[in-house]
Amino acid sequence: MNDPAPGAGLARYAILLHEPQDDLNIGAVARACRNHDLRDIRLLRPASNDPDRVAITAPRCEDFLRAHVRSFDRWTDAVEGIHRVYALTARGREERHRRHRLDDLIADLLRRPDLRVAFLFGREDSGLPNAALDACDGYVTLETGTWSSLNLAQAVLLVVARIFAHEGRAVPMPPPTRDFPPARAEQIDRMMGDAERALDAIRFFRGDQRENVLRTLRRIVQRAEPDEQELATLWGLFARVRKFATHGRDSPGPADPER
Amino acid sequence: MNDPAPGAGLARYAILLHEPQDDLNIGAVARACRNHDLRDIRLLRPASNDPDRVAITAPRCEDFLRAHVRSFDRWTDAVEGIHRVYALTARGREERHRRHRLDDLIADLLRRPDLRVAFLFGREDSGLPNAALDACDGYVTLETGTWSSLNLAQAVLLVVARIFAHEGRAVPMPPPTRDFPPARAEQIDRMMGDAERALDAIRFFRGDQRENVLRTLRRIVQRAEPDEQELATLWGLFARVRKFATHGRDSPGPADPER
Repeated sequence: MNDPAPGAGLARYAILLHEPQDDLNIGAVARACRNHDLRDIRLLRPASNDPDRVAITAPRCEDFLRAHVRSFDRWTDAVEGIHRVYALTARGREERHRRHRLDDLIADLLRRPDLRVAFLFGREDSGLPNAALDACDGYVTLETGTWSSLNLAQAVLLVVARIFAHEGRAVPMPPPTRDFPPARAEQIDRMMGDAERALDAIRFFRGDQRENVLRTLRRIVQRAEPDEQELATLWGLFARVRKFATHGRDSPGPADPER
Repeated sequence: MNDPAPGAGLARYAILLHEPQDDLNIGAVARACRNHDLRDIRLLRPASNDPDRVAITAPRCEDFLRAHVRSFDRWTDAVEGIHRVYALTARGREERHRRHRLDDLIADLLRRPDLRVAFLFGREDSGLPNAALDACDGYVTLETGTWSSLNLAQAVLLVVARIFAHEGRAVPMPPPTRDFPPARAEQIDRMMGDAERALDAIRFFRGDQRENVLRTLRRIVQRAEPDEQELATLWGLFARVRKFATHGRDSPGPADPER
């Protein structure tokens, strides 16, 4: 019971928006969180938080919004239960606290699964006031090029995607749906033998090219990692070439290469 | 000259939008690219690409948009110069091609700096047509939880941020601007000595608590890694406590702890 289930670590992260002014951003933030299995979204004095407008950027999320987005009037209520608050700030602010690279910070937090953590985002027009900056445990600046202008919802999306990458459990990728097993080496060898005979039949090789041509062809086939059906297609092609060269245009169709 | 400059690898990546319908998305995509130093944005048959509307989500980017966003009518023109095209698709599509994890794919591409690569994104309402899917070299699905609903601009932002994380050169973080050097161990020792005397003066210790209290206090101070000015503040505080206890309310102000 000491090993938490994969993804369980996500429950300890909160996204805290400080006085968000635009409901479209609240919706986009909720959508970003929902995609990445974060379920603790806190709004400190939102300007409006009108459900109809929030739904524009978070369609079909009514239940999620009701269950996981909470509003607060006071800072102390907004950070209730949180041990560490990290503020997203632009570069160049006065450094009151330590500034972290996001991935390094999350990697450090993986070693402290007992801590509940909030990432704090300032309002769209004016950022975070000094009182909030002072109350934080550290700053995070998203890494960008020299031109740095991410809006609120974009910044949240990048943060929650990295939390998810470290702590989440991604839905597994579907395995490639191959209907046929990969071709085995000896099948490729036999096909290559038939290919050589076919190319001989059409007098493809000139001078000392034979080895080079066959090596190149084999390299291409091997790199493609064909399945049995794909190999059979090549096989059929060369069988047809050979039959055509031997019997002419009126020869019967491709032989079954497995015979 | 064989070692490319950091960030040079970004120049080989293109973002290709297939029939984008909403100019707000074009602007948001351009903004995401500009933040992450990607400068090759290609639009295949955009519905409108009206500069005034694009500018809503990409404010103050006129020059960037003019220089780095190009429109094409034909697929072959849109992928001109590109060696590999990877399509962003939702999970669950028929697997015509290999499906990649984004980070794994970019890591693989780091070993092939000779290749120019496009990431292809389908239109907002209908995704990618089969002809485009067939023309790709592989699929990429962004890793999310079970609820997966990222809009076009969000998907592009997550992709370009990861390209930048692998290939880009982030603007360096400012070093913490401490005006004072970290406190040295012997300064902390001397401060602790003064603290003990001050706490003695106000008869703070009871019974056998002395060792525990001092150990706790020292641990707190050490973990805070104070600079010299911060330590001086603590020092002054205890000096004042002691003076107050000894001389009463009318004692002179805090002593200089360095004397």
